[in-house]
Amino acid sequence: MLGYGDPAGYRPLREAIAVHLGAARAVRCTWEQVIVVSGSQQALDLAARVLLDPGDLAWVEDPGNMGARGALIGAGARLAAVPVDREGLNVAAGVERAPGARLAYVAPSHQYPIGVTMSFARRMALIRWAAEAGAWILEDDYDSEYRYTGRPLEALQGLDPEERVVYIGTFSKVLFPALRLGYLVVPPDLVDAFTAARELTDRHPPTVEQAILSDFITGGHFARHLRRMRLLYAKRQATLIEAADRELFGLLDVRPADAGMHLVGWLPEGVDDREASRHALERGVEATAVSLYGTAPDKRGGLMLGYPAVDEDEIRAGVRRLASALEHIC
Amino acid sequence: MLGYGDPAGYRPLREAIAVHLGAARAVRCTWEQVIVVSGSQQALDLAARVLLDPGDLAWVEDPGNMGARGALIGAGARLAAVPVDREGLNVAAGVERAPGARLAYVAPSHQYPIGVTMSFARRMALIRWAAEAGAWILEDDYDSEYRYTGRPLEALQGLDPEERVVYIGTFSKVLFPALRLGYLVVPPDLVDAFTAARELTDRHPPTVEQAILSDFITGGHFARHLRRMRLLYAKRQATLIEAADRELFGLLDVRPADAGMHLVGWLPEGVDDREASRHALERGVEATAVSLYGTAPDKRGGLMLGYPAVDEDEIRAGVRRLASALEHIC
Repeated sequence: MLGYGDPAGYRPLREAIAVHLGAARAVRCTWEQVIVVSGSQQALDLAARVLLDPGDLAWVEDPGNMGARGALIGAGARLAAVPVDREGLNVAAGVERAPGARLAYVAPSHQYPIGVTMSFARRMALIRWAAEAGAWILEDDYDSEYRYTGRPLEALQGLDPEERVVYIGTFSKVLFPALRLGYLVVPPDLVDAFTAARELTDRHPPTVEQAILSDFITGGHFARHLRRMRLLYAKRQATLIEAADRELFGLLDVRPADAGMHLVGWLPEGVDDREASRHALERGVEATAVSLYGTAPDKRGGLMLGYPAVDEDEIRAGVRRLASALEHIC
Repeated sequence: MLGYGDPAGYRPLREAIAVHLGAARAVRCTWEQVIVVSGSQQALDLAARVLLDPGDLAWVEDPGNMGARGALIGAGARLAAVPVDREGLNVAAGVERAPGARLAYVAPSHQYPIGVTMSFARRMALIRWAAEAGAWILEDDYDSEYRYTGRPLEALQGLDPEERVVYIGTFSKVLFPALRLGYLVVPPDLVDAFTAARELTDRHPPTVEQAILSDFITGGHFARHLRRMRLLYAKRQATLIEAADRELFGLLDVRPADAGMHLVGWLPEGVDDREASRHALERGVEATAVSLYGTAPDKRGGLMLGYPAVDEDEIRAGVRRLASALEHIC
């Protein structure tokens, strides 16, 4: 276990991940399709380098994940910003603006930053486009472990009969980011390419953590941890919604979310979300402006509100301070 | 320590590495110039991506490290194979064949695979070329911790007043490969570029190992470990040389090495080293053919003999079996 390992990762961990994803997210794969990586950032970087040639066009959600844009640009891709609405990625807009794209990057379970879940209709439209265009879909499922209402939403990956989806997951949000462990689930005929690429970029993931994590999952601790955190985060989200209803009426429209680790509060028309974010920070509340993640300046401003890492008293106090900040500018 | 960390690595570890390198290898740097990476393979991959544009020409040693070639090719570089002789890289040949190269990859302390140490004259010639050409030197110092005779040889990095050397080191050989920890020492004005690149490829190295390794070094355990292993490996090398003198006369010319973790034995003229390697393996001796690492087919064949991982009885028994294998084909 101390010598050079398999570039695709420690086999027992790959097996444990495959079992977990099959049950939790309806991801269809064998353990051989699982490539262990150092977090989702490496998954993005590897996928961009393996799937795209320099100059290739890629759809990215707008607003969307900046780390993903960076990885795609770093691999030489050109980006087409495709708008996101309440159903998720606007596939028709993507087809119209950039029909020749080789890849679409999406976070369909819980869009980052605005939090919508991609509708079934849009999922099928995306899958159909990818099949016709011979393009890849990069599905980033970064925090789907935390789902609070209804039954878990199946991954896009499990819906695609053409196997054009490369699925990305991470342990950073459910365990801790400094661990640097995540995974790719790739179509069977891409396993060799991804494994070879991994070997040339940094050989393989560190072995000891993989072995520990593998035991943690197969021993049932991971599932217990998820259940406990899910309950806690659901409670914290409820507290945030309740406090927002009470204190932020007319200032910030905070919508509940089925999943994930943050909510978005929408500001009144004409209020600049970066200015609102600055005022909030002055009062000790971290609320990132949604407009930082997109290119369309005329969209309604929004603030991202994280709640898992704060207890209920802090949530209530924070909401009061946020209200005070927003009263100054709304 | 569980949250997202510095892409350049855990500061106490960077400081410990800078101190160690300054003392052990005369590498001139501050801790800010140290970038912690997941082994030397990632160092190569990052350096290739940051320093080279697709299509740029790079000198590689011939014979030389295949993982390095792979990383350079993966970043889109074109390779110029530059021959290595008993003084190391033949700089004049490089200048003649590929004067417009943007980078030269060298392992000057202990060339891989043939084990020579780059002479002082060649080092200065390389440094002069890089300064005139505005090119980079990638110095791979993969096993220089193990030096058995004379005073430690200074790194090329410390000799260059123009700061054109990017220095790569690893803990894989002195600790264990599955740890996946190594480092780059970059010129001051490249620190930001390398840090940004690291953030986009996989964020940062895992934190817990870095903290443990940092304590291991500053607590004096690393230095003690090196001293102990150096004595052990020197003894094993001596046993191998002695057994070779006794059993392999006329079959394999085994030269001692000042440093490193393998020796090279040179076969008689006209003997195919891949065939010799196969015969050795049939008798349970792993001896990789040097010709696998190079492009020039008419070079004299050689076998790489590793000795650190085998005790003295195994070394003597192995040499006897190797002699038996070579008697069949020499």
